[in-house]
Amino acid sequence: MTKVKHATIVGVDLGGTSLRALVVDSNNKVLGVEKDPTNAAQKPGGLIRDMAAVVERAIKTAGLKRADIAAVSVGAPGAADPEKGIIHKAPNLGWIEVPLAAELKKLLGLPVFVENDVSAGVIGEHALGAGEGTSELVGIFVGTGIGGGIITGGKLNGGSTGAAGELGHTVVLADGPVCSCGHRGCAEALASRWAMERDVRAAIKSGQKSIVLTLMEETNRTRMTSSIIAKALKKGDKVMTDVFSRSQYYLGILVANAVNSLDPERVVIGGGIAARLGEEYVQPARATAYEYFLRQADTERVEIRCGVLGDNANALGAVVTARKKLDQS
Amino acid sequence: MTKVKHATIVGVDLGGTSLRALVVDSNNKVLGVEKDPTNAAQKPGGLIRDMAAVVERAIKTAGLKRADIAAVSVGAPGAADPEKGIIHKAPNLGWIEVPLAAELKKLLGLPVFVENDVSAGVIGEHALGAGEGTSELVGIFVGTGIGGGIITGGKLNGGSTGAAGELGHTVVLADGPVCSCGHRGCAEALASRWAMERDVRAAIKSGQKSIVLTLMEETNRTRMTSSIIAKALKKGDKVMTDVFSRSQYYLGILVANAVNSLDPERVVIGGGIAARLGEEYVQPARATAYEYFLRQADTERVEIRCGVLGDNANALGAVVTARKKLDQS
Repeated sequence: MTKVKHATIVGVDLGGTSLRALVVDSNNKVLGVEKDPTNAAQKPGGLIRDMAAVVERAIKTAGLKRADIAAVSVGAPGAADPEKGIIHKAPNLGWIEVPLAAELKKLLGLPVFVENDVSAGVIGEHALGAGEGTSELVGIFVGTGIGGGIITGGKLNGGSTGAAGELGHTVVLADGPVCSCGHRGCAEALASRWAMERDVRAAIKSGQKSIVLTLMEETNRTRMTSSIIAKALKKGDKVMTDVFSRSQYYLGILVANAVNSLDPERVVIGGGIAARLGEEYVQPARATAYEYFLRQADTERVEIRCGVLGDNANALGAVVTARKKLDQS
Repeated sequence: MTKVKHATIVGVDLGGTSLRALVVDSNNKVLGVEKDPTNAAQKPGGLIRDMAAVVERAIKTAGLKRADIAAVSVGAPGAADPEKGIIHKAPNLGWIEVPLAAELKKLLGLPVFVENDVSAGVIGEHALGAGEGTSELVGIFVGTGIGGGIITGGKLNGGSTGAAGELGHTVVLADGPVCSCGHRGCAEALASRWAMERDVRAAIKSGQKSIVLTLMEETNRTRMTSSIIAKALKKGDKVMTDVFSRSQYYLGILVANAVNSLDPERVVIGGGIAARLGEEYVQPARATAYEYFLRQADTERVEIRCGVLGDNANALGAVVTARKKLDQS
């Protein structure tokens, strides 16, 4: 199986805001990257054509041809079915039961694999990033929402139906704010980017001064992105600082909950905010987590690291899973 | 290894209030049970002598002799080290670094194994009880405190150091009441028996009427045991009913957190209260858990069952782990 192991694979991150394609060689070296904004307003077929286009461009950028590529592997949001290559449900894309692998294969003439995007990100950080060398790992990815993944015995722990790892939808403040899932008090409703944006807007509405909305207008953003957060923090914006610090507190509690439940060797915090702010983001969350560890001695042992693959984590993880599948086939 | 597989083993539950020894034959049939109150005021050596005595009595009750027994296996509270047979720390016994297996072996002349009591309980329910037939299972045991255990791929998921499963010490109400561990808002501080007793006493102190303290006096109890809870509920005690219902709500949230994180096939709720009250205890917690499932379809699939092994769960689980170890040796 040496041939397959050394194959070049295109990893795709199908994000809610951008499409990203990475051409990755047998040594996991990135040969070419291309990205496009995600136009989620169109039908699935249109978005899948956009994906094919960005994959083709990335292959060209890498100086390769389709024939040089062994497979394409997509990290997709929502309930992805890696076995069938179907996306059962991706609310942020408006997708229901989309046969992504089959459709993309038709357009590209290449084998296509599908994995949940956060699972892919955790697999990526585990195989090639901040989780390398661990057997028991927890990944928590904070972006618009919060996703997670558990590595048990060196492999993704999918649970009984592949849906394990939804740490963002565990309650850390019962009867707290309403979450995107409709429940109250989930970690996502307290520590995600949308939760921070909700709190910043509420503070401004209640009369507190903040430059966040001005920064968003200046850069034509309708959402409080990680770069807006970073800029506001840099300028010492009081509202942003308070909201950010509260989100770090709840993230820390979520990390401690995962450590007390799962006893991992390490926790990796990934996603857009961590990619942008690094230790400025992770350090206060780590301090809270350590405070909430059941076994205080674990602060000596359990590392809480910032992800190192940044925006490439999901696509790289998708490549890693594709390589495993090719090896097994 | 047929001989060993069919061995008769004594399982011991070293509980904070009672010592329990079960003689269990090759078909997991209980041939004899003996119990004694736990005298935790004495030094470890004294308590270990008490354990030896109750084991000897159970063997007699079963109509057997020491020579008929292949091993003794103890489910012990706190940080048990199954490899070394040592209890690193058991706060409710005042034990630190007690070489339990070696000491008990000296007294009985039989091989002795040690396992954490809640881990043993979950293994017991998984192998012989309400968790039978599952590959992915979560056990939540509610007693004085709350412990848990995770079965992954059919085996106890110990995490990286054997300490996984401390679901009772995951925060479900950030900044909530102080827990036995010193942190705030853990599930144990909201849903355990001691948390219920705290709330009942506070309600009575604030002037609410309740028969709980009278029931405790009548039966010479200093603690609000499961049987006191059951009696007070049966008499329609308003304080007890309210406190009980609140604890079931938080238990339900804890169950949902475990399901959303781990995607098990089933959750077993064990421990003293579940043993005493069964569905009266589990049903409202199940209703809350179902409400908090991220994937609503999981209510059709993920079962939440009451443990069926009752007070024997820990000792039976200890027997199961001993049998595996004997088979491997």
